[in-house]
Amino acid sequence: MRVFHHAAQRRHDPAQFLVQGRPRPCPEKPARIDALLAGVAALGLEAEAPADLGLQPLAAVHTSDYLLFLKTIHDRWRALEGAAEVVVPNVHPRDRRFGYPRSPVGQAGWHMADTACPISADTWDSVYWSAQSAVAAADAVAAGAAAAYALCRPPGHHAFADQAGGFCFVNNAALAAERLSRAGRRPAIVDVDLHHGNGTQGIFYERRDVLTVSVHADPADYYPFFWGHAQECGAGAGIGANLNLPLPLKTGDEGFAAALEVGIERVRAFAADTLVIALGLDAFAGDPFGGLTLTTPGFARIAGRLASLGLPTVIVQEGGYPCPELGDNLARFLGGFAEAHRP
Amino acid sequence: MRVFHHAAQRRHDPAQFLVQGRPRPCPEKPARIDALLAGVAALGLEAEAPADLGLQPLAAVHTSDYLLFLKTIHDRWRALEGAAEVVVPNVHPRDRRFGYPRSPVGQAGWHMADTACPISADTWDSVYWSAQSAVAAADAVAAGAAAAYALCRPPGHHAFADQAGGFCFVNNAALAAERLSRAGRRPAIVDVDLHHGNGTQGIFYERRDVLTVSVHADPADYYPFFWGHAQECGAGAGIGANLNLPLPLKTGDEGFAAALEVGIERVRAFAADTLVIALGLDAFAGDPFGGLTLTTPGFARIAGRLASLGLPTVIVQEGGYPCPELGDNLARFLGGFAEAHRP
Repeated sequence: MRVFHHAAQRRHDPAQFLVQGRPRPCPEKPARIDALLAGVAALGLEAEAPADLGLQPLAAVHTSDYLLFLKTIHDRWRALEGAAEVVVPNVHPRDRRFGYPRSPVGQAGWHMADTACPISADTWDSVYWSAQSAVAAADAVAAGAAAAYALCRPPGHHAFADQAGGFCFVNNAALAAERLSRAGRRPAIVDVDLHHGNGTQGIFYERRDVLTVSVHADPADYYPFFWGHAQECGAGAGIGANLNLPLPLKTGDEGFAAALEVGIERVRAFAADTLVIALGLDAFAGDPFGGLTLTTPGFARIAGRLASLGLPTVIVQEGGYPCPELGDNLARFLGGFAEAHRP
Repeated sequence: MRVFHHAAQRRHDPAQFLVQGRPRPCPEKPARIDALLAGVAALGLEAEAPADLGLQPLAAVHTSDYLLFLKTIHDRWRALEGAAEVVVPNVHPRDRRFGYPRSPVGQAGWHMADTACPISADTWDSVYWSAQSAVAAADAVAAGAAAAYALCRPPGHHAFADQAGGFCFVNNAALAAERLSRAGRRPAIVDVDLHHGNGTQGIFYERRDVLTVSVHADPADYYPFFWGHAQECGAGAGIGANLNLPLPLKTGDEGFAAALEVGIERVRAFAADTLVIALGLDAFAGDPFGGLTLTTPGFARIAGRLASLGLPTVIVQEGGYPCPELGDNLARFLGGFAEAHRP
């Protein structure tokens, strides 16, 4: 299995975010990369740097005003009198009927859903290369590889076409699926992160050419709160091409596996010919978030079930936060996948 | 001129809000009341407590889920593990297509536009009585008084039917106008606060029975950023019943007065029979916000021009923050108004 990662993905280093009104240390740290690379190395694999394909693959999913914002906002923000070192939104539009704001403060509120995606001078570089890693993995699979893993960090699945949120800026899994779609494939995205893949859902919500499935903690009590309910099934041409499988908090391996079977069945019914796995490892019982209670063997089991679809597969890293088992959980997932995969 | 105010309006005491990513002391403090009451006293007037008319006048403008939120969220928030003392939103819906969130954290993001409206255990009481003050002033005018002043604090004009923002929770000026409308009047609201009255605009945007006019710093560079542009003229039945008069930053008395004349002409054309003035005093050059540069005599001039409409008038306090001239600016406005008012 080819593995893609770029050293610049380490630069983005957010300090904190607000949790229930209090500043907390941000767990989406560069150290995650070390743990994940250790997991890769444990399998005897080695990461390669992705090619630089420029902005075009990002612009296939994201709006041009949003990409311009991501690339330029830090400089414009720092030029404001008294501005903080990082861009953090403090006022959000209730609706968007009156058009795009000119002020950097207004643009931050327009393009950032929450306080968990601060933008520093280093952010764009990491986001850009995280995206290139996803695109490289998609291109490898489109060119015939059975599977490829993109060690994407920052993660992507909370990013909408024009909005950052929840540690995410560019939607790496969506980039991979879009890339595959444009190469003539019929991709399904299965998101097994602890949190609902709301950005991914939003990007494809009215499309019928890409299936989106997400298994996650019930948003009634969990981030991202506003999306991820079972009744969200797509709209317009996309009706039936989105499936949410919310789980009660603290659900473990059995409950997760049962929901995943429903998702796998939907992938088959959709007749997908390529799979994109949005691989969060934060459903682990020992993850700092602690929302679900998967075990380390549970990740091998999930991987085996997804591999049983027998489809060429792009695995895109999403969440999963510092804990002693993080690298091992990745290794068990990738190892379990490779073992069961007969595309 | 009757003046309405309730001692409970002093209880809400927010500590800070985010400005360009940095926490800053909140200027919307109880001490504003002392300065404003001093201005009232300088005119030989005395504030009286409003009657308690319950929730009905608030429910005439705000949604029931929002009022329930304002009244109950602090207790539910404090029951969350690790929650801050005050309710502050940290994640906002990009859209509202999937319905109302159950989680207190989700509800905070749904109902609060920014970090400038923290909710403590004391907030609801102050908001409730601020609203009753506005309603009492409207009722006095509906009953035949030439003019009445509601010392509303917290202010209201950034509050939408279902959303707090910018120090505001319940839209006092909208309550007054709605109350007058239901009493058979045809009211116009003229908002002279430094900031655009976005909540007031939003509440009446598709209605033709209440005119909304706002003179304010250009939102291209100023809070509230997403609303307040000249092209926002109402929608549906309300087309033509909203007028925004944005001014370049640092505009002074002359520029403000010229814009106000356009607003006054529109009030005449609308054939309003009652006026509601949303009286911000923060367009003052010495206000901590410093966005415009009105002088103290400038407030008497504005008041005189509004009085020249000759309409029964409810004056509702909006912004205006601690500075040595705050009370005097109010006295000059109310005094200048009374002097020129011949309804």
